[in-house]
Parts: sequence; structure tokens; C-alpha cells
Amino acid sequence: MQTKKGLLSHPPRVLVGGFLVVILIGTVLLTLPVSSAAGHATDFLTALFTATSAVCVTGLVVVDTGTYWSTFGQLVIISLIQVGGLGFMTMAVMFWLLLGHRVTFQERMLIQESLNVIELSGLIRLAKQVIALTLIIELTAALLLALRFVPELGLARGIGYSLFHAISAFNNAGFDLFGNFRSLTGYVDAPLVNITVTGTVILGSLGFTVMADLLRYRERKKLSLHTKLVLLVTVILLLLGMSVFLMLEYNNTLAGLSAGGKFWASWFQAVTPRTAGFNTVDVAAMRPATLFFIMILMFIGASPGSTGGGIKTTTFGILCLAVISLARGKEDAEIFNRRIPKEQIYKGMGVVFLALCWVVFATLLLDVTEKADFLKIMFEVVSAIATVGLSAGLTAGLSAAGKIIIIITMFLGRLGPLTIAFALAVRQKRKQKYRYPEERVIIG
Amino acid sequence: MQTKKGLLSHPPRVLVGGFLVVILIGTVLLTLPVSSAAGHATDFLTALFTATSAVCVTGLVVVDTGTYWSTFGQLVIISLIQVGGLGFMTMAVMFWLLLGHRVTFQERMLIQESLNVIELSGLIRLAKQVIALTLIIELTAALLLALRFVPELGLARGIGYSLFHAISAFNNAGFDLFGNFRSLTGYVDAPLVNITVTGTVILGSLGFTVMADLLRYRERKKLSLHTKLVLLVTVILLLLGMSVFLMLEYNNTLAGLSAGGKFWASWFQAVTPRTAGFNTVDVAAMRPATLFFIMILMFIGASPGSTGGGIKTTTFGILCLAVISLARGKEDAEIFNRRIPKEQIYKGMGVVFLALCWVVFATLLLDVTEKADFLKIMFEVVSAIATVGLSAGLTAGLSAAGKIIIIITMFLGRLGPLTIAFALAVRQKRKQKYRYPEERVIIG
Ligand SMILES: [K+]
Ligand SMILES: [K+]
Repeated sequence: MQTKKGLLSHPPRVLVGGFLVVILIGTVLLTLPVSSAAGHATDFLTALFTATSAVCVTGLVVVDTGTYWSTFGQLVIISLIQVGGLGFMTMAVMFWLLLGHRVTFQERMLIQESLNVIELSGLIRLAKQVIALTLIIELTAALLLALRFVPELGLARGIGYSLFHAISAFNNAGFDLFGNFRSLTGYVDAPLVNITVTGTVILGSLGFTVMADLLRYRERKKLSLHTKLVLLVTVILLLLGMSVFLMLEYNNTLAGLSAGGKFWASWFQAVTPRTAGFNTVDVAAMRPATLFFIMILMFIGASPGSTGGGIKTTTFGILCLAVISLARGKEDAEIFNRRIPKEQIYKGMGVVFLALCWVVFATLLLDVTEKADFLKIMFEVVSAIATVGLSAGLTAGLSAAGKIIIIITMFLGRLGPLTIAFALAVRQKRKQKYRYPEERVIIG
Repeated sequence: MQTKKGLLSHPPRVLVGGFLVVILIGTVLLTLPVSSAAGHATDFLTALFTATSAVCVTGLVVVDTGTYWSTFGQLVIISLIQVGGLGFMTMAVMFWLLLGHRVTFQERMLIQESLNVIELSGLIRLAKQVIALTLIIELTAALLLALRFVPELGLARGIGYSLFHAISAFNNAGFDLFGNFRSLTGYVDAPLVNITVTGTVILGSLGFTVMADLLRYRERKKLSLHTKLVLLVTVILLLLGMSVFLMLEYNNTLAGLSAGGKFWASWFQAVTPRTAGFNTVDVAAMRPATLFFIMILMFIGASPGSTGGGIKTTTFGILCLAVISLARGKEDAEIFNRRIPKEQIYKGMGVVFLALCWVVFATLLLDVTEKADFLKIMFEVVSAIATVGLSAGLTAGLSAAGKIIIIITMFLGRLGPLTIAFALAVRQKRKQKYRYPEERVIIG
């Protein structure tokens, strides 16, 4: 009981500790000769980088997943992805519930309501639900992918590839087996692969609370504000991303493609920065303006409690709402006939500010340790902190110091926001004993 | 009375209208053959660009000020700078006072107190004070510069250069007469020029309210929170800017300089992005990381009600305080035993968000219209919106479309924040009749 209470009273520590243990186990397994295709031991830093990237479902790699690792090594990687992605999603949801006395009452109600879990006794059932839903989606995706991969690669390899990429897609991990850092560029105009992968990625990036809310829409006939906001921001970002990508790359990376190819490539590249990390077009060949635009999409990222990263769609959404209400001279940030609590807008601002600070800091550090184009360095940092995994070509050639900086960035990007959110939820319960008098400054 | 009331009830229109008229007069004068050194008419777009840059005290130029324009043309430019800089500072202060019934009571008290103006009748006195202080500082600076420029350039030219650069420095305008877009690179290790120019620039960037508050410190023995915050942020940014510049450029643009030269160059390049726009080191030769760091300094900019631009030191300061208080689990943003009103932090966030949106939008537009390095395009946009005037080499070669985009950006950068602040102050008086129920979303 003491132990349980001790663990529960420090949820961030449990989360961070658990992830560290899984990463270390993965690292040790990947250093073994049996894990590499060539059959010799892998250096510690490469193994640590790969394990961190897999557990944090980032997808940045210093060695090519398809050619460097053996089948065993690839099995280790996909297991780390599944544990990392599923573990994070389940743990996030469970913490929200378990720590009902630490998070605000409304937060608890929101999650309990959307998950239909009122009692702690429902937790096991909830965990089962998350796992079941994950397996159903992953298997469906694998089945669809097999329609293309089995004829192409033979039965055993085709099934293996289908499962690997289905798991990688749902967990927004971005790891692929196609060799030579090619990702899915071979399927740029293949509708089945495009639809399956993007559909799976989007489902994975919505977050379990949203999926649960959607599944229960039929019986309840209403959606939570959280679900509505997630869906709205997701749709806007997908459409905007697709249009801008099409415009910016029409005469560049899309030039050689048919009309259908241009359509699918724009759609895929709009989905993947948030934050799947697959690509069907060569990222390093994109225009700087496109890289910058993709950086913004990556930074915003996926939705809370999902396998995706970034500052999250809801954070971006409520900050936009706050600015809109300001510009219209209204006091409250409002949407769907609801008011967003000011305190949440505050927290959202904090998350964005801290993430930006780390991006600037890590980018300037890497600019010193690496010899590379500044914009591509920043692209890699944003990709790491938002657990995206898209690369403009820098990661494979990183120095040892650069690898360590990116490893830390991936870890912070995966666990930082949730941990900070918890720390804040706990801390803000302490009321201040006194308040200083208010005094204004002139701004603007 | 009707007219006066009409004007006063739309202060942003007066401000915007007044600036537009001065820009247009300047444009017409600059198109005249007498304004160019070669004695022929200048095209409208070049004249408009130069006049806008001068009135908005930005300092970006498409033709070299020292060689392209005649003495008459240079006189027009320095007059536009003086009218633009002084006019803005006076108008800002006067609006704050005149519109006492529109801005909040505390804001009015703050300005009235720091300026020692209680009655409207004190306005003329106030305007005289602003003009007197400006002239004193500019003449002192010109006198100091003359010690170097007169022996170097002869009496007439030396005095002219001293006056021009003193006015340009105090108004944070960044225009220079040294030819070939060289700015002050010829004086990189000259202590007298460095001290005079940076001192004048810093005084101009503090804002009149701060200067007035400092001048009255002797009798009052206390400073307003606004003044303290401005000074604190200014000192931190100067020291940080100097250290980072020294580190990043030690083996690059600073390599050929003596220890003293390195010191002065780092100091000068730390002062000038906020937002004077002079440079003693070739900006185009700086490392991308340095350009990026300078972009951040430019974006933050100077203090409110000053001749400088940017989102302002106080805005940056209160946002930092808000994030620090969040991280420490405190409810209020506090400093110097005072509490910052939440509403101001909100407004500050809005200013930053809108400025960032314009930077992204204009950068993507220019990326389409210009053939240039992406980072340098963004540098130019940030330089324009923060009315800095530093150039990484793009502006002189801008296309017609590019010139128009930068002209709009300079104008928005100079008038936008103040206008928005006023619009907000007016609008927020309207109370909403109803409030929607509150509902939380999950963030982070
Ligand atoms: K990823
Ligand atoms: K300037």
C-alpha cells in the first residue's frame, strides 16, 4: 500500500522511470550481434538512439531500419514501438483517472465521462478496451496493406511488412523497412497504401478519449467539447496542410507526378507531419519554405493522450481562440457555445513557450556540433521534439554530441508536456498565502 | 468641437492617417530629380519604399542612402525620420493621456504619474518636454560624433554627418551616409563612435515614459514597475546578446579583430537589433545561427512608446514572468513585489501571436516572389516588422512585389501594435451580455 501510494503520488516519476527502463532494455537488446543484419555488435550510442526513437515513437534513425537490423532487431524495434505507443496512451489515460484527487474535478469528470469509467474498478476494463481497440485497428490496417505487400514481397515477408508498418502507423512511429531511408516513397501514388496508412495514422493521432467519445456517439448523441475541438483543428490542419503543400511543391518535388500522384502526395505529406513521420516524397528535396511550413505542422502535432506528439491540437486551438476573442474585444475564448477556462489558455501558452525555448536552445547547440544547413538542423530538432521522425537528411550523419542532443530532445518531446501538465496540476493546488498588489505596465 | 471629438474618438485612424500623409509627401519629394545625386527622377516604388522606411524609422533601403540621394534627398530622409520618430513617440504619449476615458483608469494613472501630467492643460508642456529632451540628446550625440567625423570629413561634411547619424541613432532609424550599404562597418573598433551611437540608440529605445520616470527619480526616490521592468529586460537582453554574439561569431566575422574590436563589435551588434538597424559587422557574412539569434532579439525589440519597434521588452518580460510563475505553480506573474494583471498577459500573447502570423505569411509570400536563401528572407521580414533595418542582403535586390510586401510589413510593424492596443482598450469596455458555460479540454 505504501509503495502503491508512493508511486501514485509521483506519476511523472513513474512515467519517466518506466520509459527509461524500457529504453535501456531495448538498448541492450539492440547492441547484441543477433540484432544486426551483419551479425556483429552495435555500438551503444546507435542502439540507445534507436531504442529511444522507437519507445518515444519518433522514427528518426541513424542507421537504416530495413537494411542495418536483422529480423530479430526489427522485432525488438516494433515491440518497443508498441510498448511505447500503447504504454503512453494507456498510462496517460489511467493517470488522468487514478489521479482524480490531484487533477481538477472538471478534468476528471471530462475523462471519466468520455471513457465511461466512473469507478476505479473500471480501470482494468478500460485498459482492456484500449488494447482491444489498438489491436483491431492495427490488424485491419495490416490486412489492407497485405493486399499490396503480399503479392509484391511474397507471403512471409509480405505479412511481416504489413504488420510492421500497420503498428508503426497506428503508433505514429514512422519506422519503415523499405531500406536506404526511403520510407514510403515507393508508394507515392498507390491509393490503397495511402488510404490505409493515413487513415491508421489519423486514428492513432486522435487520442483514446476522442475515439471512445466517437464510439459512444450513437447512444449518447453528443460529443464533448474536447472531441469537437480535436476534430475541428485536425480537419483544418489537414486541409490547410494539403493545399499549402500542393502550392509550394507543385513545380518541385511534385513535378514528375500525375494529377492523382500529386493529390495523394499532398494528402500524405499533410497527414504525416502530425506526427507519423512517414514520407512518400523526399523531404531533403523540398523547398526551404515547405520545410518551414512542415515545421509548423510538426510543432502543433497530434491530440492529447494519443501516440502522436507536438504541443497538441487542443493547445493550438485554444490559443487561436484566445487571440480571436482578444481581436474581437471579447473577454472569453469561446467555441461551440462553450467558454475555455483562462487557466488552460495560460497553461497552453506555457507549453508552447517552453517547447520553443528548447527548440532554439537545441538548434543553436547543434549548429555548433554539426556542419549542416541551419534550416535542416532546426527541422530535425522540431521533428525530434514533436516525435515526428521526418528527416531532411541530417540525422543519419549526426556527430556523437549531436546524437545525444537529439536523444534528449526526443525524450523531452515525448514525456515533457504530460509530465509538466501533471506537475502543474499538482502544484496549482497549493494556494498562495498572500498576493502582491497589482501594477500595470505598458505593452504593445 | 465635433471634429476634435471625431478625431479623438478614433485615435488609431488619426495615427494611421497622419503617417500615411507624411509618407506620401516624402514619396513625392523623393521622386523629384533634385532629390537624387544623379539629378534624374526616381521611380515611385523606390521613393515610396524609402519614405516608408524613413517615417517608420526602419532603415531598410533599396538604394544606398549615401550615394544614390542628393544632399536635398538626404535632408528629406532625415526630416522624415525625425517627424516619424518624434511624432510617434509624442503621439503615443498624448493618446495615452488624451484617451483617459477610453483606456483603463490604471493605465492613465501610470502614464500621468510617470510623466507628471495630471491635467489636459499639461499636454503642451509635455510635448515641449519630449521635443526638448530629443533635441538635447541628439545635439549631444552629434557633438560627440563630430569629434571623429569633422577631422575625418572636413567641417561642413563632418557636421552634416554628425547630425544625420545622431538623429538616425536616437530615432532608431538605422539610415547611414557611408555609402555602398556599409553602415558603420568602418568604425567597428572606434570606441567613441561605438559608445556615442549605442548610448543614443539605447536612450531612444527606452521610451519617453521611462526617461521621464528616470529624470524624476531624484525627487521621488521610486520608479514605476514599468520602468523597472523595461530596465531589467533591456540589461538582460544586452548582456545575453553580447555574450551569444561573441560566442557564435568568434571564429567568423570577429576573427580578424583585436580583443578590443571583438568587444566593441559584440556590444554594438547586441544593441543594434533592438531596433536601431546600424551594423559594424557585415550581416550577410554572419553564421545562420547568429542570424537566427539576431532575429529573436529583433522580434523582441525596444520598449513601448519609444522610437524602436518589435513586440516590446515589457511584452516579452511579462510573458516570461507568466511562464515562470506557471512552472513554479504560482497563480500570478510577479516581479518587484508586484502582480501583473492577467489581462495584460493575455494581450501580450495576442500581440506576439499576430506578429508571428504575419512573419510566417510574409516570409512564405516572399519565398515565392524572390529567389533567395529562406533564412535571409525571414531575417528581412523580421527586420521590417520590428522596424530594425538590418539586412542580410536581400532588400537591395527585391522584386517589385517583394518591395510592396516589405513596405506593408514596415507599416504594420510600426503602427500595428499600438493601433491594436488602442482598439483593444476601446473594445474591451463593451461588456458581454451573456457568458457561455465553461468546459475544459485536455491539453499538453
Ligand atoms: K513519429
Ligand atoms: K530601425
